[in-house]
Amino acid sequence: MKAILETARSKNVHVPQTNKRPIHLLEEKKAALKIAYIGGGSREWAAKLMVDLALSPHLEGSLALFDIDHDAARENENLGAEVFSHPSARTRFHVHATGSIDDALAGADFVVISIEPGPVALRKADVEIPWRYGILQTVGDTTGPGGLCRALRSVPMFQGFARKIRERCPSAWVINYTNPMALCTAALLTEEPKLKVFGCCHEVFGTQMMLARLVRDNWEVPEPPRQEIRLEISGVNHFTWALSANWKGRDLFPLLRQHVSGKEFFKDRSEDAGRARSQQRWFDHHGLVAYDLFRRFGVLGAAGDRHLAEFVPWYLTSEQELHRWGVVATPISWRMQRLRKSRQAPDKNSALKPSGEEGVAQMEALLGFGDLVTNVNLPNRGQVPEAEAGRIVETNALISKNEIRPICAAAHPPGSGELIRRALTQQRLALDAALLKDSDLALQALMLDPLVDLPLCQLKTMLEEMLEATAGQLPGWDT
Amino acid sequence: MKAILETARSKNVHVPQTNKRPIHLLEEKKAALKIAYIGGGSREWAAKLMVDLALSPHLEGSLALFDIDHDAARENENLGAEVFSHPSARTRFHVHATGSIDDALAGADFVVISIEPGPVALRKADVEIPWRYGILQTVGDTTGPGGLCRALRSVPMFQGFARKIRERCPSAWVINYTNPMALCTAALLTEEPKLKVFGCCHEVFGTQMMLARLVRDNWEVPEPPRQEIRLEISGVNHFTWALSANWKGRDLFPLLRQHVSGKEFFKDRSEDAGRARSQQRWFDHHGLVAYDLFRRFGVLGAAGDRHLAEFVPWYLTSEQELHRWGVVATPISWRMQRLRKSRQAPDKNSALKPSGEEGVAQMEALLGFGDLVTNVNLPNRGQVPEAEAGRIVETNALISKNEIRPICAAAHPPGSGELIRRALTQQRLALDAALLKDSDLALQALMLDPLVDLPLCQLKTMLEEMLEATAGQLPGWDT
Amino acid sequence: MKAILETARSKNVHVPQTNKRPIHLLEEKKAALKIAYIGGGSREWAAKLMVDLALSPHLEGSLALFDIDHDAARENENLGAEVFSHPSARTRFHVHATGSIDDALAGADFVVISIEPGPVALRKADVEIPWRYGILQTVGDTTGPGGLCRALRSVPMFQGFARKIRERCPSAWVINYTNPMALCTAALLTEEPKLKVFGCCHEVFGTQMMLARLVRDNWEVPEPPRQEIRLEISGVNHFTWALSANWKGRDLFPLLRQHVSGKEFFKDRSEDAGRARSQQRWFDHHGLVAYDLFRRFGVLGAAGDRHLAEFVPWYLTSEQELHRWGVVATPISWRMQRLRKSRQAPDKNSALKPSGEEGVAQMEALLGFGDLVTNVNLPNRGQVPEAEAGRIVETNALISKNEIRPICAAAHPPGSGELIRRALTQQRLALDAALLKDSDLALQALMLDPLVDLPLCQLKTMLEEMLEATAGQLPGWDT
Amino acid sequence: MKAILETARSKNVHVPQTNKRPIHLLEEKKAALKIAYIGGGSREWAAKLMVDLALSPHLEGSLALFDIDHDAARENENLGAEVFSHPSARTRFHVHATGSIDDALAGADFVVISIEPGPVALRKADVEIPWRYGILQTVGDTTGPGGLCRALRSVPMFQGFARKIRERCPSAWVINYTNPMALCTAALLTEEPKLKVFGCCHEVFGTQMMLARLVRDNWEVPEPPRQEIRLEISGVNHFTWALSANWKGRDLFPLLRQHVSGKEFFKDRSEDAGRARSQQRWFDHHGLVAYDLFRRFGVLGAAGDRHLAEFVPWYLTSEQELHRWGVVATPISWRMQRLRKSRQAPDKNSALKPSGEEGVAQMEALLGFGDLVTNVNLPNRGQVPEAEAGRIVETNALISKNEIRPICAAAHPPGSGELIRRALTQQRLALDAALLKDSDLALQALMLDPLVDLPLCQLKTMLEEMLEATAGQLPGWDT
Repeated sequence: MKAILETARSKNVHVPQTNKRPIHLLEEKKAALKIAYIGGGSREWAAKLMVDLALSPHLEGSLALFDIDHDAARENENLGAEVFSHPSARTRFHVHATGSIDDALAGADFVVISIEPGPVALRKADVEIPWRYGILQTVGDTTGPGGLCRALRSVPMFQGFARKIRERCPSAWVINYTNPMALCTAALLTEEPKLKVFGCCHEVFGTQMMLARLVRDNWEVPEPPRQEIRLEISGVNHFTWALSANWKGRDLFPLLRQHVSGKEFFKDRSEDAGRARSQQRWFDHHGLVAYDLFRRFGVLGAAGDRHLAEFVPWYLTSEQELHRWGVVATPISWRMQRLRKSRQAPDKNSALKPSGEEGVAQMEALLGFGDLVTNVNLPNRGQVPEAEAGRIVETNALISKNEIRPICAAAHPPGSGELIRRALTQQRLALDAALLKDSDLALQALMLDPLVDLPLCQLKTMLEEMLEATAGQLPGWDT
Repeated sequence: MKAILETARSKNVHVPQTNKRPIHLLEEKKAALKIAYIGGGSREWAAKLMVDLALSPHLEGSLALFDIDHDAARENENLGAEVFSHPSARTRFHVHATGSIDDALAGADFVVISIEPGPVALRKADVEIPWRYGILQTVGDTTGPGGLCRALRSVPMFQGFARKIRERCPSAWVINYTNPMALCTAALLTEEPKLKVFGCCHEVFGTQMMLARLVRDNWEVPEPPRQEIRLEISGVNHFTWALSANWKGRDLFPLLRQHVSGKEFFKDRSEDAGRARSQQRWFDHHGLVAYDLFRRFGVLGAAGDRHLAEFVPWYLTSEQELHRWGVVATPISWRMQRLRKSRQAPDKNSALKPSGEEGVAQMEALLGFGDLVTNVNLPNRGQVPEAEAGRIVETNALISKNEIRPICAAAHPPGSGELIRRALTQQRLALDAALLKDSDLALQALMLDPLVDLPLCQLKTMLEEMLEATAGQLPGWDT
Repeated sequence: MKAILETARSKNVHVPQTNKRPIHLLEEKKAALKIAYIGGGSREWAAKLMVDLALSPHLEGSLALFDIDHDAARENENLGAEVFSHPSARTRFHVHATGSIDDALAGADFVVISIEPGPVALRKADVEIPWRYGILQTVGDTTGPGGLCRALRSVPMFQGFARKIRERCPSAWVINYTNPMALCTAALLTEEPKLKVFGCCHEVFGTQMMLARLVRDNWEVPEPPRQEIRLEISGVNHFTWALSANWKGRDLFPLLRQHVSGKEFFKDRSEDAGRARSQQRWFDHHGLVAYDLFRRFGVLGAAGDRHLAEFVPWYLTSEQELHRWGVVATPISWRMQRLRKSRQAPDKNSALKPSGEEGVAQMEALLGFGDLVTNVNLPNRGQVPEAEAGRIVETNALISKNEIRPICAAAHPPGSGELIRRALTQQRLALDAALLKDSDLALQALMLDPLVDLPLCQLKTMLEEMLEATAGQLPGWDT
Repeated sequence: MKAILETARSKNVHVPQTNKRPIHLLEEKKAALKIAYIGGGSREWAAKLMVDLALSPHLEGSLALFDIDHDAARENENLGAEVFSHPSARTRFHVHATGSIDDALAGADFVVISIEPGPVALRKADVEIPWRYGILQTVGDTTGPGGLCRALRSVPMFQGFARKIRERCPSAWVINYTNPMALCTAALLTEEPKLKVFGCCHEVFGTQMMLARLVRDNWEVPEPPRQEIRLEISGVNHFTWALSANWKGRDLFPLLRQHVSGKEFFKDRSEDAGRARSQQRWFDHHGLVAYDLFRRFGVLGAAGDRHLAEFVPWYLTSEQELHRWGVVATPISWRMQRLRKSRQAPDKNSALKPSGEEGVAQMEALLGFGDLVTNVNLPNRGQVPEAEAGRIVETNALISKNEIRPICAAAHPPGSGELIRRALTQQRLALDAALLKDSDLALQALMLDPLVDLPLCQLKTMLEEMLEATAGQLPGWDT
């Protein structure tokens, strides 16, 4: 890590510069940082990570890609070679694909996990079986019947990763990107409570950007960078909320209240939804669901509408109702198609562009290159007053050298607080179902699901069908 | 109270008899017990109370009936004269109707409250408007949209009662029978926290009787009296649960588990429901909903199926589904018809029969005629671990002379615990809506309701319609 | 248990008699009740238990006495023969001493534990070593340095008992009488969480009797039996408190306030203490410490002054100060002397007298012979709001057939509540010290002890001396 | 505030620069910052604040000094003139003394409070009366009998300040420096819950510096600036603890453990104490008390030894024992003497030196000149798991533009956790005593004090003497 440290410059305002010499004396003589990537064949996340690493002036080292689809990892190895040799790259990482998770992890400083738990075809079952029972899911990877089944197959995989990490790199920082975020993260810590794990998600960034545009439009200033929008985050991943929001110390909630009270604000957006569908812009939305939650509870939903809508019973009552809010469900066909596209090497003639993700910034903060205040998923120790100790919650946190400390959120209003507690109980039941391979607990998790409004016998049949469809990924179950 | 005390005989096993003389010296020289009845024109509850009083060997005194329908109170006055002069009556109470609530309350030892909040016609609105939006309610007086509107009009009435009681009889024991039980009781204590208030409901007795029959049928013994079935109660009124059950120390849950595992046990009971409808037996049920909750969560629903079904989303998805469980919704037409029947004096030729209600037994216990362990509604001080302090919960309690102390329940399993928390939050929002006359909070209460599965704009329209229908009983609202 | 059941008569007022036949059918055909007594050589407690059993009309069976001092158990066997053949005995128990704890426990319905943990000589060390460091203890068996060392040697013994009970009679009710009550009881449940354990102590009875005399003296009535004094108990054993008190529903606290406000009430009682010492009446006291706590905190200490004084720093600052309150420390010499006295058979010519203890009444209640409301030591599940879940606390409880359920206490005032929390933390540290055989934790427990006001180096030296003195009873410690 | 804003440069690393124009548009057109200083005659704190302000490149405006000793405020006005005209001053503040608190507060952006509650002579009584009863206090301004009496007279003053602030500058940030910190801060918020109040103290800085020297000595690096020592702070003011400590991500606790295990580490330091006394270096200490707490509990006391020692019973058993730890009590005579010294204008020929205090840095952070992570006193919202909601606790916090958010601390070990809870309960009782002017509650606060080991009658007499001595500052008391 010598190279890294030599370039270190504390960006923390209130921490004066210290002579750099002692660090040399103190640090172990590692040649460089090692990052292990589980799910290293990932099409999207691996590429983004490599570009961001390439743009970091602070980091240098190697990136080990492990994937059960070794070919995909090899493709990323090739892509990596191009990224780090790009003219605008500021550093080098040696990227190599390996078929051995043990080799990938051995001695790693960071472990990044972004996997697809099981064949993508299963996502089809996750969404299509419930749809036959009248349950519409916009995403189906976090909560709802789809999220549940995805959790059931992911949890044992993450238990396995946890054991491997403890063996091979017990003091590494482990960053999970995989959904269902809360449960995959919980699985790691349930298996190995001493690992240094946190979960990262970019949904809150979208809320920041939405508010940045609001600031721009209302206060006649250029659009501020999203980091200037300070949110007081409290919730569970994809069902995060901002209890307050400010830009440069100015409370944004009065502005928001005025914004959403416009006569046409909540008008029917079915046309927009139709256009998004025909143009395959699946992620388009106006934030109307987030704003509607704000209108009703006084606190702002802080994730994309596709995710928020799955945690409450009001927006997914029909496709028509969903479209009315300007939101469309992501089709599975598109997800499967996307897999067949080949990876694109970066254009040599234009500069590499930062992905907008924060993983590399977090690594830098953990390595001591300046504090970072952001939002992450961590076990609750009091930061979310509504949650039991130990449940995985999403709040702001302060990341500094080798530590992450959650920042206390205020209490939610009773209504939104209850919705969060419900989601947490559902997650607890789903986690226990996965750990104990118990379909009765899985049924209980579904029974509490806000998207579910079925007679219990139908619900049970639906669950059985789903478990059967995903049975190949549920080793040890009695189904 | 002299006469009463002279007949006093402590039934408490472990408290040896004491010389009665000191009591004479100690007690104030009251001629007799005074009971005030708010809603004293009540057709059913007043008659039951008078019969039970007439059968008590311990009590004697006067019963003041106040009702805004003074004629109804007068009818009960007449009925009372017949009850207490009945050959099998063991004591006398002077029953008189009064048009003044102040006179009724002045110096009372007990206050009983069982009122209809507003014209019965409003119950029609409570049930029929939601039905037009697809929301089916079996009762509509506790939770759901109907329970909410009923709460909105009851709470201010109960605030008024509380003020009157504090002025006229601040140390009386106040027994509430009115639904929504939890919110009417909460309204009294919110207004006057020092009153000695509790709420009573007979739903748990039905569960005890159901289990008594089970004991009879499985263990070849005569049906035990319901009091021998000991339940560990924890929940909110009408959504009460038994966390354990025993008869003479024998755990009944293994028997229950065996009972419900019979192949045909949960078979379709639509035919029974059809028969109940044609015969106007609206309260018939097999306890299948209670047993289904037991099958799913491992703890037993301890109220009638009509009530339990309204607290969860699974049984009221359609009339057909409801009937499948052998349950029918109580029609409002029947409720209105019933009001037109005249009161029936007791037959002189047959003995008065105890009503099966427990109000008089509770009064006896509070007067020192032996301890009573039963279930009541009280502010939470820890007896329901899932509930915040102060919320009105239903658990077992020990009633003894001039005091009621709740008995601690164990923790619920996570699933049923979450359902209770949700009901408590909904009630909190409904209470605040009523106290603050705030339709936004009323909407939030509805949003959390498990029977609600509507787009929010429809929900809001429905609420507006309901508030308009009940507007005459919502003084001070801005609707 | 046939004989027992045939004589059964439910004393519970509100539970009507049932035909007795079914019970015959239901109950297992046990010849009789079996009680196992660990510490069966006990001089005082075994004799009391046998007399109370002999006076019970309900119970019949055998009593197995196990003691590591087999001769003492044999002496009690002989004593038992005389007790149960006494003319006034109402039942028979076959009493036999056995050298095998396994035989004693096999198939027992109840297990009673009252042991002396280690040679009595160690009690000398428990008291005398601290005294050399200026720490005065009145009893030294519950808290303070003496209570700590006694806990350290008791806990492993009770862990052993728990394992044996689980093997030999896992569904027996286990009643612990041994001090330190809270920690011995905790040790059983820590080792075997599923055992049905509770702890019994008579200290609260003394408070009831004190108040009964107060009622007699102030209200000119005969002294009521102690059971008529209803206390709302909340605390830890020997540091129990009454949050309220009534007799027949009348609040006793106003009377108490008047009582303690007498000018001479708290006058110096050194003379009484001197007299008690010269007459060897070690347990005499006026309850002045209990009343002083009442005067200061508004809630009443509900144990003997000798015990209460050890939980706070104010009364044991010197022997002189202690005597000023009319209390004397129990000398160890007397305890040791007492052991040398031989057991006295009951006088054939006068009736057996109930001991005043409650163990047999509790067994009767657990066997279904009527409910009993009393105070017992149980794991906290919310009954003491100040305590963490699981800590052993003392409150009221309802004992009925085969179950014990704690009754919720109100919150303490902040001052007394804090004293209880401190005692609980101290106990937690002492328990962990014993379980982990860790002298650092033992030191922490001492550091929190209110009797301790020493420089830490002295405290550490004192602890080392005490551990050395008791080392023979601390197997596995590194001292 | 225009001038200020024009110089604004966000130091926050992860918040990219934004075009400055919009800020002009957005900010109100205030000429400059206004700081009000209550206790503006303060000798030490006012001087430090003015120097730090003078060195800030960001701030500019006016400083209004209010003091009931108007002459003292005038002297500071003069001193201020010299400070801000000093050649090394980087900014100007207009300093003016005013006899009107209303004028001082009107429109202030910040309010600083550092007062002496009552004549300094009362500090003599605070310390000397207890000393006559054998209670030694090293400082006597925070806890112990001295801290209690100081709280009793401060609380009503702070209630008065709160009312004035609400009237004159309700959205000002209020920074309290006065001891007892927790109670003065609580008094402000009890009176006016909506004020933006926090409390500041430099004691933790001393711990950081102590550890910085340790790093220097053990790792052969130059002494790091204290801000590089990151502590996880959790406790109450002056009884703060570090639950963990790191320097640049390296855990310092293993180093500390090694450090304190040196054979001579805890040796008798009486000689040092003697030397400190003869040289009047009252604040000298080696941190031995902090380290001893670390040795015993595994977490580090994070305040000066003089303060820590007052919160536990072990170090102040005698002067000799205190000196053994290398600590001396601050004599009151010295405090009084110091008051007579005249203020010293800064030397024109050498640069102004930063005071080492953090108030100005906090103001800068609140104005948006970069985030600051530090430790402050705030109402608990979960950051200290041991404390009730709302109690004033000291933890880390993130200060950013117009907001302060506490950072969650982990749970304490049980032993130190209990000590904190005790201190919090004592503070609660003292606060209630002050608010209700109730000497019984004051006595309860003393009864819980770890320095108290007296018979209650003596304690009561002592308290009466103290209340009498301070009676002139206790308006409305019935003493």
